[in-house]
Amino acid sequence: MKETEISTLGEFGLIDQLTKNFTVKNESTLHGVGDDCAVLDYGGDKLTLVTTDLLLEGIHFDLRYVPLKHLGYKAVVVNLSDIYAMNGTPKQITVSLGISKRFTVEHIAELYEGIQAACEHYNVDLVGGDTSASVTGLLISVTAMGEGKKDEVVMRSGAHDTDLVCVSGDLGAAYMGLQLLERERKVAEELHDEHFQPDFSGREYLLERQLKPEARRDVIAEMKSLGISPTAMMDVSDGLSSELLHICKASGVGCRVYEDRIPIDYQTAITAEEMNMNLVTAAMNGGEDYELLFTVPLAQLGLVEQMKTARLIGRITQPELGVRLVTRDDSELEIRAQGWNAFSE
Amino acid sequence: MKETEISTLGEFGLIDQLTKNFTVKNESTLHGVGDDCAVLDYGGDKLTLVTTDLLLEGIHFDLRYVPLKHLGYKAVVVNLSDIYAMNGTPKQITVSLGISKRFTVEHIAELYEGIQAACEHYNVDLVGGDTSASVTGLLISVTAMGEGKKDEVVMRSGAHDTDLVCVSGDLGAAYMGLQLLERERKVAEELHDEHFQPDFSGREYLLERQLKPEARRDVIAEMKSLGISPTAMMDVSDGLSSELLHICKASGVGCRVYEDRIPIDYQTAITAEEMNMNLVTAAMNGGEDYELLFTVPLAQLGLVEQMKTARLIGRITQPELGVRLVTRDDSELEIRAQGWNAFSE
Repeated sequence: MKETEISTLGEFGLIDQLTKNFTVKNESTLHGVGDDCAVLDYGGDKLTLVTTDLLLEGIHFDLRYVPLKHLGYKAVVVNLSDIYAMNGTPKQITVSLGISKRFTVEHIAELYEGIQAACEHYNVDLVGGDTSASVTGLLISVTAMGEGKKDEVVMRSGAHDTDLVCVSGDLGAAYMGLQLLERERKVAEELHDEHFQPDFSGREYLLERQLKPEARRDVIAEMKSLGISPTAMMDVSDGLSSELLHICKASGVGCRVYEDRIPIDYQTAITAEEMNMNLVTAAMNGGEDYELLFTVPLAQLGLVEQMKTARLIGRITQPELGVRLVTRDDSELEIRAQGWNAFSE
Repeated sequence: MKETEISTLGEFGLIDQLTKNFTVKNESTLHGVGDDCAVLDYGGDKLTLVTTDLLLEGIHFDLRYVPLKHLGYKAVVVNLSDIYAMNGTPKQITVSLGISKRFTVEHIAELYEGIQAACEHYNVDLVGGDTSASVTGLLISVTAMGEGKKDEVVMRSGAHDTDLVCVSGDLGAAYMGLQLLERERKVAEELHDEHFQPDFSGREYLLERQLKPEARRDVIAEMKSLGISPTAMMDVSDGLSSELLHICKASGVGCRVYEDRIPIDYQTAITAEEMNMNLVTAAMNGGEDYELLFTVPLAQLGLVEQMKTARLIGRITQPELGVRLVTRDDSELEIRAQGWNAFSE
C-alpha cells in the first residue's frame, strides 16, 4: 500500500481529495463543503447555516498560558465568526469534550463559564454535545448553527471584477500576542521560577486578541445600517493571504491589495519591530484575527468610506491578473498562502 | 480550589452540572440538551434535528481490531441512529478529524470510504467539517442534522401510564462481539504471532453488530406503514437499562420489563455461556446495540403485535411503581444503569 504523509497535501488538499467523490443527494443541501458554513434549506423563508471547529490541546492551544475560561469563550467565538461571515445570525451550538484524567470537575466548570459567557454575549443557545474521557489532553469540538435570509446569505464565490476588497478591524495582533506569550513562557522556564510574573503592560490589546477574540457582529450590523450588500465574505482565521486566495479561487477572479492599506495596530507594529519580525508577514499570514474580509460592488464606494469598523484595502480584478500585493514601492508580489497548517508543525 | 474527580459524577452527572445554568434565549430552540437530538424550529413545516457524537481512539475504538472503513461507517451510523430515534430523517453530516502522525493519506481515505458508504446507504450529505493534526491517536467528531414533521417528532418525555414498551432487533450482540474481539486479540498477543488468524466462524453476526452496526430506519418505516405512533423513543447506545431509566425519568413514569421478553440472538446466548458471562446483564447493559426503544399507546397493541422489526417487552406504569425487571421466576429487580461510562475506565 502506498504511504503518503498527510503534510504533503496539507489540510485543504486532504479535504479536497477525500470529499471529491461525495455527491449531494438531498434537495435541502444548498452548499456543502467549501465555504465558512454549509447552507441548508429546510423550508420556510430562512436558510440554515452550519459550521464546526475542532480545538486540540498541544495543537491549537497551550494551557500553560491560556486560561480555561478564555479557551471556552474562544472555542465558541471562532464558530460564531463563521456564521457572521455568511451574513447570518448564530442561534445554537453543540459542544463536545474529550477530557483526560488530569482535569477535574472544577476545571471543566471553568471552561463552561467561558462557553456560557460567549452564549450570553452572542445570544446563542447550547443545545447538545457529547462528553467523554480522552487518553491525553483536552479536546473541544463545537458545531454552530444559525440562520440567514435567502437573499442575504453571502458565499465566498460572489466576488466580481471591479468589486472593492475590504477588511474589518486590524490584522496580525493575535499572532503577535501569541509570540509574546511564547516568549514569556520560555523566559519563565529558563528562570525555573514558578511564580514568574511576565510584564505585558502596554501590550494588553495583543493578548486580548489572542486569548479572547470576538466575532464581528458589529461589522455585519454596520453594513446593514449603511445599506451595504457584500458580494463575497469570509472570516480571517488562517491569515489574510490564505483567505484572499480562497475568495479569488471560489469567485474565479484576481485581486490587488495595497500594503499601505493593510490595517495594523500600533502595539502590533512596535512588538514586531522589537521581536525582529516582518510586520507585513505577521499581518498577512499570522491568522486568528477573526476579522471579516468582504467584497462590495464598486457603486457602494461612498458607503464603504463611511464604515467605522472596516476599511478598503484593494479591488477585485479579472482572473488573469493574479492575486497580488502592491507594496509601498509600487512593485507587485504574488500572494501565497502561508497561513497556519496544523499538519506541517 | 476544590478538586472533584470527574468519575465521581459520570458523564450524565457532569453534563447536568455544567449545563444547569444555561437558559434558552432563542425562539427557534424548541428543545436543547437532554434528548437524542436537539429540536430546532427554523420556520416552515418541518423541525430541524441535531445530534453529535465523539469517537476517540483508545476510549471508543481500538484500531488493533477495528478496520478504518468500518470505523468510518460506524461513526456516521451512531449519529443517524439518534435522528431516527426522534422519528426523523437524517439529511446532512459534518465530520471533524484529529489525526496523529502515524496515519497516512491512504489510512484516512479508507476511513472516508466507510463514511461515504454510510452516506450513500442512508441518503445523507457530507456538508462540512474540520481536519487537524492531533498529538496522539485518531479522533472523529460527527454532527448529524435531519428533519422531522412538527406533529411527528418523538421525544423521550412522552411515555404515559399503560403505554406498551417495545424494542427492535435483539440486544447484547455488539457487546459479545467486543468480548470475542478482545479475547482473540489477547490470544494473538500471547502467541507473539503477528499473522495469527482468529477463527470467528459461526459468530459473524456478533462481529457485524460490533463493527458495522446499522441505524434502524426500517423500524421507523414499519411503524409508519402500520400506523403506529410512538409516544416516546430513544436509541439503545448505552444499554437497555440506562435507556429505560432515561425514558422513565424524562416522562415521569415507571415501567415493568419482562426478562423472558428481552430479545437475544442465539449467537449472543451461546457466546455468553461459553465465556461464562451473565446473559441478561450483557443484553441489558452491554450497549452499542443501536436498536430503538419506544413506547406505544395500549390501544395500538394489535398493531405492535404485527411488527416484524420490534417486539413488546413490557409496559409503562405510574412512577411510584419504579423501573423494574420482572425475572423468569416472577420476582422484581430494580433496574440500575450499568451502561458504559467512559470516565470510570
